[in-house]
Formats: sequence, C-alpha cells, structure tokens
Amino acid sequence: MVQEEEKQILEKITPTEEERRLVYGIAEEVRRRVEEELRALGVEAEVRVEGSVAKDTWLRGDADIDIFSLLPPETPKEFLKTRFLDAARKATKGYRQVERWAEHPYLECTLDGIRLNIVPCYKTRPGKWISATDRTPYHTEYVLKRLNEGLKAEIRLLKAFMKGIGCYGAEIRIGGFSGYLCELLTLNYGGFRRTLEEASEWRPPILIDIEGYYEGHPEDALELFQHPIIVVDPVDEARNAASAVKPKRLWEFVSAARQYLKKPSQRFFFPREKPVPKPEQVRKKLLARGTSHIALAFRPPKAPPDILWGQLFKAEQAVCRFLKRKEYRVLRSACWSDEEKQAVLVYELESRRLPAIKRHVGPPVWMTQHSQQFLEKYLGNKEVATGPVIEEDRWVVYLKTGRTDAKNVLKRTIGKEKMGIPKAILESMKKTLKIHADEEICILCENAEFSRFLNEFLVGRPSWLEHNNTSSKT
Amino acid sequence: MVQEEEKQILEKITPTEEERRLVYGIAEEVRRRVEEELRALGVEAEVRVEGSVAKDTWLRGDADIDIFSLLPPETPKEFLKTRFLDAARKATKGYRQVERWAEHPYLECTLDGIRLNIVPCYKTRPGKWISATDRTPYHTEYVLKRLNEGLKAEIRLLKAFMKGIGCYGAEIRIGGFSGYLCELLTLNYGGFRRTLEEASEWRPPILIDIEGYYEGHPEDALELFQHPIIVVDPVDEARNAASAVKPKRLWEFVSAARQYLKKPSQRFFFPREKPVPKPEQVRKKLLARGTSHIALAFRPPKAPPDILWGQLFKAEQAVCRFLKRKEYRVLRSACWSDEEKQAVLVYELESRRLPAIKRHVGPPVWMTQHSQQFLEKYLGNKEVATGPVIEEDRWVVYLKTGRTDAKNVLKRTIGKEKMGIPKAILESMKKTLKIHADEEICILCENAEFSRFLNEFLVGRPSWLEHNNTSSKT
Repeated sequence: MVQEEEKQILEKITPTEEERRLVYGIAEEVRRRVEEELRALGVEAEVRVEGSVAKDTWLRGDADIDIFSLLPPETPKEFLKTRFLDAARKATKGYRQVERWAEHPYLECTLDGIRLNIVPCYKTRPGKWISATDRTPYHTEYVLKRLNEGLKAEIRLLKAFMKGIGCYGAEIRIGGFSGYLCELLTLNYGGFRRTLEEASEWRPPILIDIEGYYEGHPEDALELFQHPIIVVDPVDEARNAASAVKPKRLWEFVSAARQYLKKPSQRFFFPREKPVPKPEQVRKKLLARGTSHIALAFRPPKAPPDILWGQLFKAEQAVCRFLKRKEYRVLRSACWSDEEKQAVLVYELESRRLPAIKRHVGPPVWMTQHSQQFLEKYLGNKEVATGPVIEEDRWVVYLKTGRTDAKNVLKRTIGKEKMGIPKAILESMKKTLKIHADEEICILCENAEFSRFLNEFLVGRPSWLEHNNTSSKT
Repeated sequence: MVQEEEKQILEKITPTEEERRLVYGIAEEVRRRVEEELRALGVEAEVRVEGSVAKDTWLRGDADIDIFSLLPPETPKEFLKTRFLDAARKATKGYRQVERWAEHPYLECTLDGIRLNIVPCYKTRPGKWISATDRTPYHTEYVLKRLNEGLKAEIRLLKAFMKGIGCYGAEIRIGGFSGYLCELLTLNYGGFRRTLEEASEWRPPILIDIEGYYEGHPEDALELFQHPIIVVDPVDEARNAASAVKPKRLWEFVSAARQYLKKPSQRFFFPREKPVPKPEQVRKKLLARGTSHIALAFRPPKAPPDILWGQLFKAEQAVCRFLKRKEYRVLRSACWSDEEKQAVLVYELESRRLPAIKRHVGPPVWMTQHSQQFLEKYLGNKEVATGPVIEEDRWVVYLKTGRTDAKNVLKRTIGKEKMGIPKAILESMKKTLKIHADEEICILCENAEFSRFLNEFLVGRPSWLEHNNTSSKT
C-alpha cells in the first residue's frame, strides 16, 4: 500500500524503539502517579493515556503525552481549578510546569524535550458532555478500534504532510487540521494517498460523515455546520471535527495534495529552511515593490496562545478596516508574534498617502433633511474640490484629502478611536506601540524570525509550490 | 395666484404683442401655404399649428412654430420622405431649410430668428398611432381644453425655471423636461409654485397619472415604465410623457425647487453668464487638484444632435469602463461638443499612472483545471511581485504594473480593441483623435465654449446652488 517514495518518509517520521520505550515509560509512570495523587484525595478517577501516544500515531520527536483523568460527573468545577491542579503538580514534580486554560484548567509539563498534558475531564456518556475534553476518551477508543499497523503508518504520513505544508494543528494561529482529524480522514479514505486523491477533487460543500449520521438528509449537516469543510465527529453527531480549519488552510492542503500526486517529493514533508534574509536585503525588496508598508509593533499582552492569536487576527482586521474606511488601498496584511516580547501587524498599501481627491457620496436628493444637512456642510466648504453635484439621484462632493500619510493617521488615532481592536491589544499598544513605515520596518528584521516572516509575506508563494512541479510537460 | 417675485419674471418671459402678431402671422401664412401645396398634390390633409404656439405657452423670443399635416392613414410612408418634403420646401421658399429626421423626416426652417418645423403625421384615433408624431394634435387638444390665461402664465414660469436651471428639453443632450411635460405638471398641480412644492416632496417611485388610467393598480404603471419619473400621457396610457428625464435632471429640478421656495430669486430663471476662464486659469486649476485629467478630442461624426449625443454618451461610458477595467481610478467624466467641429471626452483620474502593484484574483482552488492553468501562467512569471497565494478559497497573484500611463494605454488601444465605442465615433477617432493629458488640455480651452464647459465640470456645483441660499438662518 505504501509507495516507494513514502517508505523513505516513514523511516524518518516513525518513532524509534528507544523513543517509544521512553515515551511509554514516562506516560505510564505519570499516569500511575496522577492516579495515586487523586486516590489520596479520595477521588475515584480513571486515569488514562489518550491522544496520539495512546493510539501510537505520533510523529518521531513530537510526542505530546496526554494524561486524562476521567472524573465522576458530580465532581464540582471548583475541584478542577484547585485540588486537581495540585494533584497534577505533585504527580509531575521535577517537570517544568505551566498552567494552561482551554475551557477549564490543565497542566502542561516538560522534561527533557518530552511534553505532557495533565487534563481533567468528566466520565460521561456520549452526548451528555459536561466539558469539551470529555469526548477525548471516546475519540481514542473510536480510532483504536479501527487501527492496524498499516493505517498507523498512513496516519503518520498524512500528519507529517500536513505539518510540512504548514496545515497541521487546530490552534488559532494555524487554523489547520488536528491530529484526530488526520486520523479520521485516513480511516475514512483508507490511506494517505487515497486521502490526497480524494482531497484533490474536493468541491464545496465538503461533507464527510463516516458514521452516516446525516445519511439521507445531508442538508441538515450543511445547515448546522457553517464551515468550509465538515467532518462529522463519529462520537458526536453535533460536532464538526474540522471546525477549526480556515478556508486558506483547507485549500492549501487540497492544492498541495494535487501537486504532490503529480510529482511526489520529500519537499512537502521536510521543507527546506530558507536562510534568514538580512535587513538590507529586505530593504531592497520593499523599495523595489513601489508600494508602501506599515508595521505596527508592540509587546503582546500575556495570554494563552489561542487567546493571543485570536486577538491579533482581530486587531489585524480592525486596523485593515480602519485604513480602508479612511480610503487607503490595502493590498494585503498579516501578523506575526513570538508570543512573548514582540507582535507586529503588517500592511501593504498602494500608497501611504491618500489620492489627492476623494469622492464622498451623500444622501439621495429625495431625503430632504439629509440633503439639506449635506448641503449645509459642504456648500462653501474649503475642503471641497468639486460639488456638491447630483450624480444619478444622490448628492456627491469631491474632497481634497491633503494626501494624508497613513502612518500619521494611525499614530493620531490608535488608542483614541474605537476601531474594534480587542481591549488587551489596545492597552498594550497604548504603552508600547511603535509604527514603522517602509524602510523603517527593516529595524524589526534584526529579529530573525520576523525577518523570515516578512520575507515569506512578500513572496507569498507556499514553499511547496515550485515552477517545475506544475508544468504538465515534466 | 402669481406671487410678486414671479410677476417680474413674467414680464420678461411673456411674448410681447409684437412678437405674438409676427409669430401668429407667420404660422398662419405657412400653414395655409402647406395646405395649398398638399392640395396641389391631391392630398386632403388637415394642416394645423401645434405645440406651444398653438397653446400660447411659448417663452418670449423662443418661438418654435410647429406646422403639422395630418395625412390620411392610408398615405404611404414613401410619400412622407419624398413629395411631402418637396411640398414643405415649396411652402417655405426663402427660409433656410434643413431636413431633419426623428422617426420620419420633417423640415426645419428658419427666417429672421423664427424657427418653423413642417411635420407630417397621420390622422389617427388614439391608440391607433402609426407614427410617433400622431399624438401631437391630441396633446395640443388636451392642453388647450384645460387652459386659461392664468395657467398659461404658470406654464411659462415653469418652463423658464426649467430652462434657467438647465433641465428644459427632452433631447438626449439635456435629458430633461419637455414643454408638454411642463404643461402637464402645471395642469396637474394647478400652478408653478404648487408644482415646485409638490416636486420638493417627490420620492421614488414618482407616478403622476392625471387621467387615472392606473387607479387601483399603480404597480402596473411602475412595471411598464422603468423610469425615474412616470407621468402617464393623458392621451396615451401606454406612454410615459417623462421617459426622457434622466435621474440627474429630475433631482436637479427637485433640489432647485426646494432652494427656490426657500429663497426665490431671478437667478434660477436667468443664471448669470460666467466669464470664460482663460487657458492659464484652467491650467492652474487643473494642477492644483493633484489628480490627472485625460481629454480625447476628435471631430464629431455628422449626425442629427440626438443621434450624436447618444453616441457621445455611449463613447464616454465605454472609455470609462475600459479605463476601470485597466485598473485606473476614474473619479468623474463628461463630454462636450459643438456638434460640428469638435467633440471632447474628459476624464479625471486619481492618477494617470497605475499603482505599482495590482491584485489579480484567480479561480477558486476547487476549480482544478482553471487552477492548474493559473499556476502555469503565474509560477515563475517575472511580472509577479507576490504569489500565487491562496486567499480564502482562491488563487491570487500580485502583479507589477510598470505604472503604465493611461494616456499611452488609450493611444495604443483606441481603434484596435473593441471597447463598445459606437462605430461612427470610432471611425472619427481613428482619423482625428488627439489625446491630451493634464496641462496639455489647456490648448483646447482656446475654444471659449469648451473652456466654459471644463470650468463647470471642475466646479460641479449647479449655478443656482449658492451658499447663503441653503442656510436655514437666512
């Protein structure tokens, strides 16, 4: 089933025996300790290893050990925030520990490059979910029942492919395919290549319903899940296991699948890391474009990554809308952060300066009061270059803009006007915002990661997309 | 009924007794001669004076004597083109004669500043129209029956008002209110002021149905006449007497009506003729705007005015669409012609040069073939600044434009590419087109009429719209 090209890949992504022993050893050890700590608290919890370690579908060097404690449904939420975390901390003594919150708290621990998540959930029946993590044991069970050694390899290939093309992970920053989703796709289509072949032909609406919950009435699924791709969760018909997938990632995967099938290459799994462009190179590239760039750099607020990235994307869009409202032509935008010291929103504009004159459309003439107000405002107004004049049924004026610089407009406005920037970001901006325009942006490129990001932003083309790969002649 | 302000107007616009005697004398004289000539041909036609002279509603110094020959319905169309015109020519010997065509031919004659139209039509029953002019005798009859001296004055005021604000005339160049339409409005509302008051409150849909043809089912009229204002012709329920009125003229009239009612002024009737701006003044004005202007100057094709202006407006729009398709930002456009030697299409652009980079949206990724073609076209393409990149579900590239000059694009393209420019105009352009950009346009301003037009285009504001006139404080 596995083709020659992929055998070489599998050799690189399947955990070694040594890694397996280490991971399973730690997993079982910590599982037992959590169990003991909870028992010491008088809580009868089933503590189990879940996720890719339980299913043996993790990628080499990328183990994420999920230890789930299935608590009785009557356990108070308060217990999860206090005594459960204490028990988890005790059980992982010696590890670097970070408290994390999804819907409820859990503990993330690292030791010697191995990551562990100690997660509480409720032991419930399907459909009676109390917290979002309650489904996980069922996910593990569902996949395990249908797995064999061959399928594990196929799943690893799909996960590694997704990772290589930048589409792996349901976190907000990525908006891609979760490990569980990769497992479901592989189970559904029967393998890595088959998944790629099927994905190549996907067309909206994309509905994958393994357990046939919506058989005979797929329109109900389309109505319920307003997402670009729907993969009905086999353990919960009311959940789309692909709800995190952003359109961009969905179609990047589809396109990469097509390119790979046409000409398989390790490049898709292991993209070449490009050299970090030097600030001077970036400067030349920016200037050569003949457009303007604006970068808003600030210290990101302290928040879990999903919260932070959600807010960054919102801020990026809010500033974009603001610029457009002010009549700037925004070509593209993006945001970047190291999640700690620096966050940057980047905009490419046709020009930093407004066109000399802008059209301003007023009310229809038949709206008497509004027309009167419009005339009172603009007749004899020094800013008017032309008008008021009637075009079709409306009053219109053409206003002199003074060619205002977007950098100055942003400087003046951010922190003073409601733009829809999330509060935490806005507070950070008020204290630490620096606005850089055009060449000034190069100073930020002293940060290698930002420099790499900016270069990729300017290039745009995904790394797996190469000229020789698309030509039908090869 | 007539207010003090309007009495002064009436003194200027009512024909003097001398003018009346002259006009009626000529009208009756020519009417008789046409009758005789037709009788000599053995045709029993009723020859009548129609239009504003018949109704005594013409404006002083502006008589247009319409002599209609009501021919038997069985008269062949051929007769109208040949022997009828001969008879008309004989009857108006000594006049300057020009053959004109509306739907069928007629003769326009001028002598000593008096204009005569010798028009053939068929004597038909309402609804059994053979040619478009057959309604005219019924229009005259309808209005005459309802007229009195007071209403004649009211009609003259409305016509003069329309004329003063540039909304008088159903010809394509104006797209305004015909004399008959002014009469109908005055009859309907009972007077000049009342018409202005009612028009001030007009809101779409505007339906005036004096004879109540659509009473109880106005939606039929709205469905039948897809025009901004509908005035059902009292002599023909299937005709909108206001079908020639363009939205711009409709709403200019409405707005002027409001301004006049707020503060009546002779200005509306007799706009001050502004001095012709000198080329140097125009040059300064153009440069100060900071935008770009392009003028296409050419000799207009020989055609009756309605045909010519129809084609000029079409050409103006076609070039505008072309420029927009090429990504130029057209702020405004207009056209001008002396109808003989010179025609000019004028465009104001944000800039003559394209932005350095333009966004080019490709197919959705799920259109496999189109996506493949898009990638083949743009991967490795030197014109690409960014991409191909997936945005939402589509391929997108950002292309370098080279900042192409609109003047050069037009030079290269006009006459070579189908843009939708009417054929006669295109032929004229091929032989005589000169394209002027920015200051180069000033050379055209040596023509005083064009200079006046361009200045009005730049100002935009209607002459009757003055600052002190709108303020509610005055």
